[in-house]
Amino acid sequence: MRLKTLRDNLADIAPDTAWIIQPQNRRYLSGFKADDAQLTESSGSLLINETTQILITDSRYTTEAQKEAPDFEVFTIKKSLQESLPDQIVGLGTKKLGFEENHLTFGLHRQLNNKLRKLTPPVRLTPLKGLVEAMREVKDRSEIKAMEASGSLISEILGQVIEGLEPGMTEIEVASQIENMARDAGAEGLAFPSIVASGPNGALPHAVPTTRKIRSGEPVVLDVGVRLDGYCSDMTRTIFLGRPRKKFKQIYRIVRQAQLSALQEIKPGIKTTVPDTIAREIIKDAGYGEYFGHALGHGVGLATHETPRVGPRDPVELKQGMVVTVEPGIYIPGEGGVRLEEMVVIEKKGPKILTPDGHFFDF
Amino acid sequence: MRLKTLRDNLADIAPDTAWIIQPQNRRYLSGFKADDAQLTESSGSLLINETTQILITDSRYTTEAQKEAPDFEVFTIKKSLQESLPDQIVGLGTKKLGFEENHLTFGLHRQLNNKLRKLTPPVRLTPLKGLVEAMREVKDRSEIKAMEASGSLISEILGQVIEGLEPGMTEIEVASQIENMARDAGAEGLAFPSIVASGPNGALPHAVPTTRKIRSGEPVVLDVGVRLDGYCSDMTRTIFLGRPRKKFKQIYRIVRQAQLSALQEIKPGIKTTVPDTIAREIIKDAGYGEYFGHALGHGVGLATHETPRVGPRDPVELKQGMVVTVEPGIYIPGEGGVRLEEMVVIEKKGPKILTPDGHFFDF
Repeated sequence: MRLKTLRDNLADIAPDTAWIIQPQNRRYLSGFKADDAQLTESSGSLLINETTQILITDSRYTTEAQKEAPDFEVFTIKKSLQESLPDQIVGLGTKKLGFEENHLTFGLHRQLNNKLRKLTPPVRLTPLKGLVEAMREVKDRSEIKAMEASGSLISEILGQVIEGLEPGMTEIEVASQIENMARDAGAEGLAFPSIVASGPNGALPHAVPTTRKIRSGEPVVLDVGVRLDGYCSDMTRTIFLGRPRKKFKQIYRIVRQAQLSALQEIKPGIKTTVPDTIAREIIKDAGYGEYFGHALGHGVGLATHETPRVGPRDPVELKQGMVVTVEPGIYIPGEGGVRLEEMVVIEKKGPKILTPDGHFFDF
Repeated sequence: MRLKTLRDNLADIAPDTAWIIQPQNRRYLSGFKADDAQLTESSGSLLINETTQILITDSRYTTEAQKEAPDFEVFTIKKSLQESLPDQIVGLGTKKLGFEENHLTFGLHRQLNNKLRKLTPPVRLTPLKGLVEAMREVKDRSEIKAMEASGSLISEILGQVIEGLEPGMTEIEVASQIENMARDAGAEGLAFPSIVASGPNGALPHAVPTTRKIRSGEPVVLDVGVRLDGYCSDMTRTIFLGRPRKKFKQIYRIVRQAQLSALQEIKPGIKTTVPDTIAREIIKDAGYGEYFGHALGHGVGLATHETPRVGPRDPVELKQGMVVTVEPGIYIPGEGGVRLEEMVVIEKKGPKILTPDGHFFDF
């Protein structure tokens, strides 16, 4: 089905063969799970044209590739990809080879281009223009099930961790708990390094956990996710152990109101800028506009961050089956931050929350 | 010192300004520790010309950047990098901007190139040709200390884990132990996902840990590393709980002999192909040539895999201060594998082992 969609779309954008190297696109189309250790070390690539689909890998991955991508013919290269790819492409009769311009490096493109244009007949490299990324935006039924499972798992883990939180625990200890629970539950891993940011650390939206001990009354931002069967989850709660200062109670109320109001706007046919504007206006009207510097949300799926971006610019239409986050925040430098994040799937009438943990405060 | 070397080298290859986006190159030159969450999400870049060094980042990272990169002027962008970079470049009077062709994507290069060539005077993008990667190959004194610390830590962890191994433990349990110990010891993380591959799984050089229980007598390949203060370590031991089959005793002996013989060839002035050939010949002469499919080793530093590659092709000269691995292996499909890996720093007279754990068998 995914291959059919890809083939239908290819017909519209000219390349006769798609060459897929981006790890999530590769997994999405083939089932091959391997990740790339580094950008310069590919664990495999796909060649797909009207009639044939080949997975090219090296001997380290042949066995896994055959098992995980049964619809693909697996070809094991002996030399480098640069040396093996031209032969494969000639074998397929390719004239225009579509490539992922936001993943292929300038250097590899140049090397390949030099070889491909010398073939007879010459092969032209032409950008795929986000073709597979666009396919991935709307999740099919099996993907929504996987996203539900991933969201449920991280909700359960974070809920348990929050119940066990006590003043004096360090941020790193809390992050370790989350990671251990994810692993014990059978997750492939974390979707991203957990953020556990207490007190002033919470003012850094991308804080790395430290040995700082959590204190009573201060906000603690917990932004976490797991990767389960390939699919990522992403959620944030901000909690207080003991009585918060009045200022942070107020900030929490504003952020929660911004989130709930934005969630009401999430439905098919609405532009991504609409919920962002709603949330941003609420925060601005409360006097904290300059302390909310990031976009309201983003797509989630095989990658933690994918299109569509839900921000103040570049409006695109929300569609049924998209999974996005809604995560407004207010960050006061030197004092602390509050961020609240839900991951939702867009259903016909509105959003369904995939991160059902109920640790919200009703200040 | 690193900036001076960069500037001296820049003079040789034409660009007047270096634009550094690759996370390890960025950290090497500036001290800025942030990694990039995804290829499409940069946490910052450096602009370095003869007189000025600027770190461009966004508001999420400003505080960390100022603290970690005190020699750099930190500039916080409000919009996207594509929109902000041209202004900075004009401010620097850049005519030729050097970029990392093995990290910059084709798509971002094209977008920027379109903007830069329209400036007055136009700015040309020109490849840096691995300039910073080449600088990173030879470690300075502070880096060797960091590599020693990273190697010692993983040696100690793996040694303890091996002492505690018992038949019936699963591969995932063992991998979890390693990760927890690394975290408790203050590592930034693992250098790469640990390989714990028992019995037939050991025949996959890049096996992912499974729920398979380790059995008595079979080979278990443990390939592990930590990242400590940015620097990676990488080591492999193959162990047996109980008496191995005669065949695997023999394979172990061959691999160990290949490793020790190759180590004797590691010294300044020797080509990388020499130790590879020595090890490969020993394995081939013993009748297992087709079961050793990968290179003998690779450079290690801020990245787990970096140049120089120590393999059968592309000879380059080993130099004092390089850190490389020596890791021959024999993999018998369906049965199991043996790999032994040391990480060494090349000193004047030969290699100094940075992974001193002594769990080798003397069959």
